[in-house]
Amino acid sequence: MTTFARIDRGEGRAAFARLHGDRLRLLAGAPWERTSETGEEVPLAGARLLAPVTPSKIVCVGRNYRAHAAELGNDVPVEPLLFFKPPSSIIAADETIELPEESSRIDHEAELGVVIGARCRRVSEERALDFVFGYTCVDDVTARDLQKKDGQWTRAKGFDTFCPTGPLLVTGIDPSALAVRCRVNGEIRQDGNTRDLIFSITRLIAYISGVMTLEPGDLIATGTPHGVGPIAAGDVVEVEVEDVGTLRNPVRPRG
Amino acid sequence: MTTFARIDRGEGRAAFARLHGDRLRLLAGAPWERTSETGEEVPLAGARLLAPVTPSKIVCVGRNYRAHAAELGNDVPVEPLLFFKPPSSIIAADETIELPEESSRIDHEAELGVVIGARCRRVSEERALDFVFGYTCVDDVTARDLQKKDGQWTRAKGFDTFCPTGPLLVTGIDPSALAVRCRVNGEIRQDGNTRDLIFSITRLIAYISGVMTLEPGDLIATGTPHGVGPIAAGDVVEVEVEDVGTLRNPVRPRG
Repeated sequence: MTTFARIDRGEGRAAFARLHGDRLRLLAGAPWERTSETGEEVPLAGARLLAPVTPSKIVCVGRNYRAHAAELGNDVPVEPLLFFKPPSSIIAADETIELPEESSRIDHEAELGVVIGARCRRVSEERALDFVFGYTCVDDVTARDLQKKDGQWTRAKGFDTFCPTGPLLVTGIDPSALAVRCRVNGEIRQDGNTRDLIFSITRLIAYISGVMTLEPGDLIATGTPHGVGPIAAGDVVEVEVEDVGTLRNPVRPRG
Repeated sequence: MTTFARIDRGEGRAAFARLHGDRLRLLAGAPWERTSETGEEVPLAGARLLAPVTPSKIVCVGRNYRAHAAELGNDVPVEPLLFFKPPSSIIAADETIELPEESSRIDHEAELGVVIGARCRRVSEERALDFVFGYTCVDDVTARDLQKKDGQWTRAKGFDTFCPTGPLLVTGIDPSALAVRCRVNGEIRQDGNTRDLIFSITRLIAYISGVMTLEPGDLIATGTPHGVGPIAAGDVVEVEVEDVGTLRNPVRPRG
């Protein structure tokens, strides 16, 4: 298991880094490229962590846990139900989720995020994990009322700040049975496990890459377990994925 | 009116260029940045044109012409109906639209593409055109059967090669009354005009930027007029936008 971060170096510069103990060793490129350490290192404590990926696309999966499909009154899909969030919706850990006025019901959705490590198209389930670089935490923030009203989920899922991602990127773990939890103000709201995914990670990668080429750094949000519910100004939302980390974001009205 | 292209320089390198007469003068950066000519130039004839944008997102608008909404049996929307195509779906002029086996009905959709020139969020309709760099042609290729079946349009609109874009990027024109046409094998199939847009370009930019930050180079596909219909292997599809150009793509089965 290796852990990576992406850090703010000031003046608009960012760098990927590999965690060694409590220190981050900077990398010359993205960790999924053939890259090397620059020799520079900084303490993890005090480093300003950015979202650990800058994907060319964020592919999300709806209704991928049975109990969650049921709680919203939906059937279990027979094929993966895909949608996109725009890269502009990504924020890092500790950044603020902003609630737009257009919605009166905005929900947390804790998810395991899969980060692609190599370009792939039409890969088999057997080979799918060869194209995964690692895992991170995602909060698929959703304006539930607009999701119902609009039909297409573009707006409901796509507002700025609606895709908290991070804080870290973890490689070399088995994603098939990880606890996925959400806490709001310390209180457990979602408590699922990736073993209950309707479409497994390998099935998702095979399906998605059968439609569109996946690029290094692309992010797949694998769906949310039962227990979604509203967030409000002043809340602190935490998405915790076992072995991957805890993503914490405060909530406020859009200014 | 100024015309720009993006050209293949070999070995995976690309460059933007400004058209002067029949020659392309290379630029050091993207034309919407503060950039300069490199001094190098190549003839337009023989240059390998790439898609003129590499957007961080492609925001598309459904049912934005009354007669088109009607032809598919849909109501006219009361607000813009947004969806995304992934950047991986972009191909250049003369590249091949590949028909995936999963669909038995794949349609052309000729559209005016708007290219954003500067980062913007929550801009007013009055100021919207200040953030537009220019215009290009887009074919919003759509698997009509999967669009109906899936509910979300992600797959139907998102296959590789489903977003032919180009060939050129034109600035300094008035987009409010441009003919938008599609020909298949030389035969006119769509013959609309942007004056019939339900939501104008300024309204679209105000609406979209009210949801998500638009980045320089982002592409908005403004919707397709009446006359959509199927394409088949062996066809040649042309999208023509008045004053902007003609985008030509052959069609074949996915190999």
